Amino acid sequence: MGSDSGYSERMRRKKAVVDAKVARADRDKGLLLVLTGNGKGKSSSGFGMVARALGHGMKVGVVQFIKGAASTGEEAFFRRFPGEVSYSVTGEGFTWETQDRERDRRVAEQGWEKAAALLADPEIGLVLLDELNIVLKYSYLDLDKVLADIRLRPPMQHVVVTGRGAPAELVAEADTVTELSVVKHAFQAGVRAQKGVEY
Amino acid sequence: MGSDSGYSERMRRKKAVVDAKVARADRDKGLLLVLTGNGKGKSSSGFGMVARALGHGMKVGVVQFIKGAASTGEEAFFRRFPGEVSYSVTGEGFTWETQDRERDRRVAEQGWEKAAALLADPEIGLVLLDELNIVLKYSYLDLDKVLADIRLRPPMQHVVVTGRGAPAELVAEADTVTELSVVKHAFQAGVRAQKGVEY
Repeated sequence: MGSDSGYSERMRRKKAVVDAKVARADRDKGLLLVLTGNGKGKSSSGFGMVARALGHGMKVGVVQFIKGAASTGEEAFFRRFPGEVSYSVTGEGFTWETQDRERDRRVAEQGWEKAAALLADPEIGLVLLDELNIVLKYSYLDLDKVLADIRLRPPMQHVVVTGRGAPAELVAEADTVTELSVVKHAFQAGVRAQKGVEY
Repeated sequence: MGSDSGYSERMRRKKAVVDAKVARADRDKGLLLVLTGNGKGKSSSGFGMVARALGHGMKVGVVQFIKGAASTGEEAFFRRFPGEVSYSVTGEGFTWETQDRERDRRVAEQGWEKAAALLADPEIGLVLLDELNIVLKYSYLDLDKVLADIRLRPPMQHVVVTGRGAPAELVAEADTVTELSVVKHAFQAGVRAQKGVEY
């Protein structure tokens, strides 16, 4: 009983702290979210937000800047909803597969044309720019142009950027930034990428 | 030209390293993945894996142990596919809203009954146990029972566990563990939780 009343008291205080914080956070705005770091879960987090947005009746745009496995589950799944999701994949394999910087750059620029169109469309509630950080890290795109297009988007549109090595300027511009770190990874134990989890 | 040939050489070496690592990772298995830490993106990452698995034609089970916003986008969206997704929400508000440990425990146990049924079903390719870590942190469930049910699941079934404060025993058992850290959060700047992003 003593411990249970202590529990109620702790929960009551915790609730008061949370309620006060929630009361102070009263603005709405289109968020720029960045998911970076080496840990597993950055792209899948972006795709989870795509699902959330669709559940609220929003329209969504996706540009995948790095093409992963030949056939990914996320692409197969979200292409089922062509009226709700605009889906583009522009990368041709990882950059270390191509060994041709000019081709990588052209492909990235084609991807950005699609991204810029989504960022100019007030009908689109959320834009996922998957693995954009990788493309920025290799300087395949002009960072100033990318930041300007993001800054000039419709005020309530959310943008999610994923990939290792987010540039400092993008982090500075963002509203919410998460760093994902590897505590452990099945790959280190000899398990290859699994359908439904990694792709 | 010199810089481009240096680029090709770096990419070639990187590709050789990646190829060798990929060749060594040749096993398949059902993975236990844990997403923990204070950063934004744990649950959405789990829901992204749900979408990936559905894209590969797998059946999926979801148990949400903590009920967040009254109506979440992920629930509205994934309930559209009742033949493919078994979806349960068992938490009744955050624990600090209820201030009643016995009720919290009963609710968590009802959730675990659903989870255990999914973990025993070889038709289910991926099980998402959303916010299970919170429930374990408050000792609402018996950790040994939870770990035993996870360990005895079908060998190719993937399990994704999310929530802050993953217990050490779960981390030890897991194949892939990611820690999400807050670099910054819009909430700190007075922006409340946004539809399509946080819920």
